[in-house]
Amino acid sequence: MIIGLDMMGGDFAPREAVKGIHLYFSETDSPATLLLTGDEAQINPLLQEFNIPADKVKVVHTTQVIDMHEHPTKALKEKQHSSIAVGFHLLATGKSEAFISAGNTGAMLVGAMYSIKAIEGVQRPTISTLIPKNNGKMGLILDVGINADCKPEHLNQFAILGSLYAEHVLGIHQPRVGLVNIGEEEGKGNILAQGTYPLLKENAAINFIGNVEGRDFFTDKADVMVCEGFTGNVILKMAESFYEMTQSKGIQHEHLDRFNFENYGGTPVLGVAKPVIIGHGISHAKAFSNMIRLAEKMIASDLLSTMKSSFEGKAQAQ
Amino acid sequence: MIIGLDMMGGDFAPREAVKGIHLYFSETDSPATLLLTGDEAQINPLLQEFNIPADKVKVVHTTQVIDMHEHPTKALKEKQHSSIAVGFHLLATGKSEAFISAGNTGAMLVGAMYSIKAIEGVQRPTISTLIPKNNGKMGLILDVGINADCKPEHLNQFAILGSLYAEHVLGIHQPRVGLVNIGEEEGKGNILAQGTYPLLKENAAINFIGNVEGRDFFTDKADVMVCEGFTGNVILKMAESFYEMTQSKGIQHEHLDRFNFENYGGTPVLGVAKPVIIGHGISHAKAFSNMIRLAEKMIASDLLSTMKSSFEGKAQAQ
Repeated sequence: MIIGLDMMGGDFAPREAVKGIHLYFSETDSPATLLLTGDEAQINPLLQEFNIPADKVKVVHTTQVIDMHEHPTKALKEKQHSSIAVGFHLLATGKSEAFISAGNTGAMLVGAMYSIKAIEGVQRPTISTLIPKNNGKMGLILDVGINADCKPEHLNQFAILGSLYAEHVLGIHQPRVGLVNIGEEEGKGNILAQGTYPLLKENAAINFIGNVEGRDFFTDKADVMVCEGFTGNVILKMAESFYEMTQSKGIQHEHLDRFNFENYGGTPVLGVAKPVIIGHGISHAKAFSNMIRLAEKMIASDLLSTMKSSFEGKAQAQ
Repeated sequence: MIIGLDMMGGDFAPREAVKGIHLYFSETDSPATLLLTGDEAQINPLLQEFNIPADKVKVVHTTQVIDMHEHPTKALKEKQHSSIAVGFHLLATGKSEAFISAGNTGAMLVGAMYSIKAIEGVQRPTISTLIPKNNGKMGLILDVGINADCKPEHLNQFAILGSLYAEHVLGIHQPRVGLVNIGEEEGKGNILAQGTYPLLKENAAINFIGNVEGRDFFTDKADVMVCEGFTGNVILKMAESFYEMTQSKGIQHEHLDRFNFENYGGTPVLGVAKPVIIGHGISHAKAFSNMIRLAEKMIASDLLSTMKSSFEGKAQAQ
């Protein structure tokens, strides 16, 4: 198993990435080898400092870095020797089986869409966030920002992608799917929600349980919650800011720590043909370690083959 | 000053309403007289029990009650002797200057729209919620649920209504208006947000400061935050559930208490021609007292005249 990792992405690269690799290998008896893209002059001394086993990592030297604020499409086109562009090239050509970066999110999305491409039949790849439930479990909300305007069929596809991810990677058996809405009954909500409900209800590939409201996200009503990316992004950032508010006020509680999204690592781009994981810019060691674990799970569970099978024939049907 | 109050609305009516009246008169040296609609057999003994001064309240006996789950339009039409229908009649005919109820929200909205009617030029009346800021101030988000699908001009009007309310009732000088969005710069967001931004920017009646993201609601970036009612309702219910989560986990802090929305009483229906205030079904004494104070402020500040002036000429322009 070969997992690609961008060493230049994120606010604390490459040191926190190397610390994350160290954490990953110290906590797991992993079958994975890591293919690291980045500046070897910066990376190699850190690999030595943290005693990373030489047979577990391989550095592919790259000479450019896409900064956090560069225009994604332009940067990817002009910086073909960047750690992100090379990372995608390695994934696209089968030299690696997954690619992870905490760098420029836009460039990661563009790379995922154009070098890796959507699974046939998937209209809109999507990103998700984990939501900590009051009972200790986790839920998944998607889309959280890359599809600000959606049609009902897009949300229906998010439900399938989210369910497969929840089942095969999060280990939730027959995940319950809820439609994010502003009322309990069918027929409530905006035009999009009204149009989506019947599609979800008729979708035999998912376990649809009805609407979930803003008050239900932290309860254990549904495992997978679908919405367009505008509402989803507001939910994600508001949940992050709750945590920040409690921290700034000095409010401490172990349950609140579960709202520290840094711990969860990154989000996979669901619906593209190979595992691509995007991390938060502020990722520290634990986030990197968790992202590598996530890539490992996505490869080991063969999630992508399952997703491809689920969407077979849908491309023609559109 | 005469304020109408539905005594039969809410889960704990009429006792908590009477306790709220008691609290209101004990805390303020109010110029208001309250016009109470409801069953006098239930109300009068409670007024005695709580020593409510007889010259400060007048009971208008009503024989019907609209339950929380009745169909709003149907109930209002069929129950013309209900405490809500009579309350609206008193307001519409000038017998009272404001009307408050913690009863059936839908019936209150229908009554506001059809017996009181929108201010000329206002396309969509709206409801808002207060949001506690980290620095101790309060912000306002609107719409929070009655306008699930909006056009840019609706959000532009919410900005005006919210600004006038913030300035004249909440006492915020030149309130800063933010557009709820999923990015910082102009041009970000969904089609609605992209269409709304230029309208807000060009609106000389408001103090527009740009986009606010989910992470900015609790910071002091903007005083008035506008969005369609789908996103706004999700924000409101999620904020409520965050408070409930901390309570269920036994997490105590004075700042968290500011998220106890019960304390704030109710929301005015902004954009209708007279002060109408809708309370939460679970309203207790403090909520009722706060709603009476809010009605008093709305009347004393002559908010409605200011709103009417702001929209003068807009009806023709459409």
